[in-house]
Amino acid sequence: MQPPAGMSDAAAAALGFEITSRDAASRARTGRLSTPHGTIETPAFIFCGTKGAMKGLTTERMHAARADIILANTYHLMIQPGADRVAALGGLHRMMRWDGPMLTDSGGFQIFSMGHGGVADEIKGRMNQARDKTLISITEEGATFRSYRGGERLFLSPEVSIDIQRKLGADLIVQFDECTPFNVERDYTARSMALSHRWGDRSIAEYQRGEGLSAQGLPQALYGIVQGGVYDDLRLESAQYTADRPFFGTAIGGSLGGSKEQMYEVVGYAMPHVAPDRPVHLLGIGGFVDIFAGVRLGIDTFDCVHPTRVARHGWALKKGARGERVNLRNARFRDETGPIDDTCGCATCTHYAAGYLSHLVKADELLGLMLLAEHNVFTMTRLMAEIREAIGTGTLDAAEQAWVVADDA
Amino acid sequence: MQPPAGMSDAAAAALGFEITSRDAASRARTGRLSTPHGTIETPAFIFCGTKGAMKGLTTERMHAARADIILANTYHLMIQPGADRVAALGGLHRMMRWDGPMLTDSGGFQIFSMGHGGVADEIKGRMNQARDKTLISITEEGATFRSYRGGERLFLSPEVSIDIQRKLGADLIVQFDECTPFNVERDYTARSMALSHRWGDRSIAEYQRGEGLSAQGLPQALYGIVQGGVYDDLRLESAQYTADRPFFGTAIGGSLGGSKEQMYEVVGYAMPHVAPDRPVHLLGIGGFVDIFAGVRLGIDTFDCVHPTRVARHGWALKKGARGERVNLRNARFRDETGPIDDTCGCATCTHYAAGYLSHLVKADELLGLMLLAEHNVFTMTRLMAEIREAIGTGTLDAAEQAWVVADDA
Repeated sequence: MQPPAGMSDAAAAALGFEITSRDAASRARTGRLSTPHGTIETPAFIFCGTKGAMKGLTTERMHAARADIILANTYHLMIQPGADRVAALGGLHRMMRWDGPMLTDSGGFQIFSMGHGGVADEIKGRMNQARDKTLISITEEGATFRSYRGGERLFLSPEVSIDIQRKLGADLIVQFDECTPFNVERDYTARSMALSHRWGDRSIAEYQRGEGLSAQGLPQALYGIVQGGVYDDLRLESAQYTADRPFFGTAIGGSLGGSKEQMYEVVGYAMPHVAPDRPVHLLGIGGFVDIFAGVRLGIDTFDCVHPTRVARHGWALKKGARGERVNLRNARFRDETGPIDDTCGCATCTHYAAGYLSHLVKADELLGLMLLAEHNVFTMTRLMAEIREAIGTGTLDAAEQAWVVADDA
Repeated sequence: MQPPAGMSDAAAAALGFEITSRDAASRARTGRLSTPHGTIETPAFIFCGTKGAMKGLTTERMHAARADIILANTYHLMIQPGADRVAALGGLHRMMRWDGPMLTDSGGFQIFSMGHGGVADEIKGRMNQARDKTLISITEEGATFRSYRGGERLFLSPEVSIDIQRKLGADLIVQFDECTPFNVERDYTARSMALSHRWGDRSIAEYQRGEGLSAQGLPQALYGIVQGGVYDDLRLESAQYTADRPFFGTAIGGSLGGSKEQMYEVVGYAMPHVAPDRPVHLLGIGGFVDIFAGVRLGIDTFDCVHPTRVARHGWALKKGARGERVNLRNARFRDETGPIDDTCGCATCTHYAAGYLSHLVKADELLGLMLLAEHNVFTMTRLMAEIREAIGTGTLDAAEQAWVVADDA
């Protein structure tokens, strides 16, 4: 992308994306994504430090688990502690004591998913759930909603979102968008997409007005978002919109359909039309099988809360396990003196017996979820390292067979 | 103490207690307590890893916080995962990955405190609380109670308790006793004490039958318990009982009265009569002011759940703070860019602003309690190090003034 007016060449040079190898049989590719806080190898998994903290891991343990990039949510942080307070604490990196790359989202996803009630579940194709509806209004200008903490009215627009993300200071930031629900008509989806595009242009303008620099003075890279629901022509149009604008990267957002198959289909509508030389992020997807599918479609980065979320429920992600994970509450772990996964090199598997972890989980000991969270983070970084290796050597099918057990196996 | 028949001289030599200095103005003393898993300096604080885990800290972080000894509770571990399972996992040390000294209690305290309903609170002088009563019967043979997990009947006697503690494999183990409630008459207290003495003799016999060795083959040191409620003559009698028996150490247990003043008085009844050359442990006491009082009475080790418990409620222990702690939910911490305690050298105070911790606590982030737990553990180890230093230099009064703010200050 063109650096914004005012961003020095040196600053612009701190941001970059280089494709280092390509799979012969798919759009899969490896790359290097450079930020002011370091370079990561792609495909990569971005871990969710939702409110500016990983659930159950210090950043020291994140390093130990080979994590290299973390995201935080604008929506949660603007509600508490507030962007100005994060800035006063030196920005996200210093506040969290994380020296690697970070991403923040725009806040749009949470406003609309929490606001409509259950849209997050719809987007991921789960059952609708009753939730408090906090969204008050969407206008051309932006979205007004209530804080889930104090109940006060809050407002988010492209300008406000970019300003907040500047104060938070992540390396990768995202345009403000309306996250279109799953079960709406094509007409609503088209109008919502057009609004997101206008908000994208305003996000770019605000980004350039700030010279592309964070409140801490470091260059930030802006991602556009592809919307368009489940409609192939809208996804194409939205992908072309992002490609035509000077975004650094592309994020695939919004409803990805009601099933895994539809998700792959919807992502597949967009991918041939996104800017081919920019990094592509797929929002909110983290299963092994979905990551292999996304990688084959050309996705470079993924994020999902599930590595730490499932840890809190006593699950360990496991290479080659049916369902991609095992439940430490299962009686078969009670007397297990070996690790959860004897092919895993994480600190948890190196030092602790599965029988001990089983006890900790059943006793609701915090240490259990801490140790499982680290194992799960490591397992995701291990998955991504093996995927990168497999792309480079043309062995993606074999890697997928090692990680994913077919449902009918 | 005499090593049990069968314990080799080499094994017996791994256990020892040496007094290294004495305070001129009180019974306070410093010492070195040696175990097969290392030597600790006393006075020391023993941290509660109740169910075989510290709440919110890995053992790696316990080392970082300079903790050197951890206890675990026989009662909780016999219920889950069970002593045989701990033994199959290599004993507590290997299971928990803790290479330092450990202590297990006998199970008596929890049986009787959970069994009578609220006795733990009575013992500590708090309001009685309704609890499920799980104690079924106390006979000469032992105590029958229900598991708080599955509801099944369990039995604990001196022999069973020592056998379980052998399997758990702590360095310091404790005789089985009846933990006499607070609000019972002198006559009940006297009969209960006599029963504990008989159980003490049976604990010694069982310990010697096992040659004083853990299931892992390492020597263990047995503590006797001083009971006697709030009655000076009974405390004297019980202290003399323990001194007359070949225990390695002495623990002060049971009801310590209904107020801090009464607690100091009750401990003071016993201390002139315990064996003067043995380490003395005070069960369940951990406030700064109480530790200073206990140290002056000659106590060598303390334990209490409060460093990690108060962390879970957002409190940081703090040297020189009114009430010995500060609440991170307090509005004054919201914008604090400095640490909780700028005189503290713990990792939490070194790396994180109090404003960030305040955010984490208010957001109920697990990381908040993890970082506070480490700070609180470090603060206790720092307290004990400064107390040891003060005893050696005759400056205990000054140390107490630095740590404890008088209520009327």
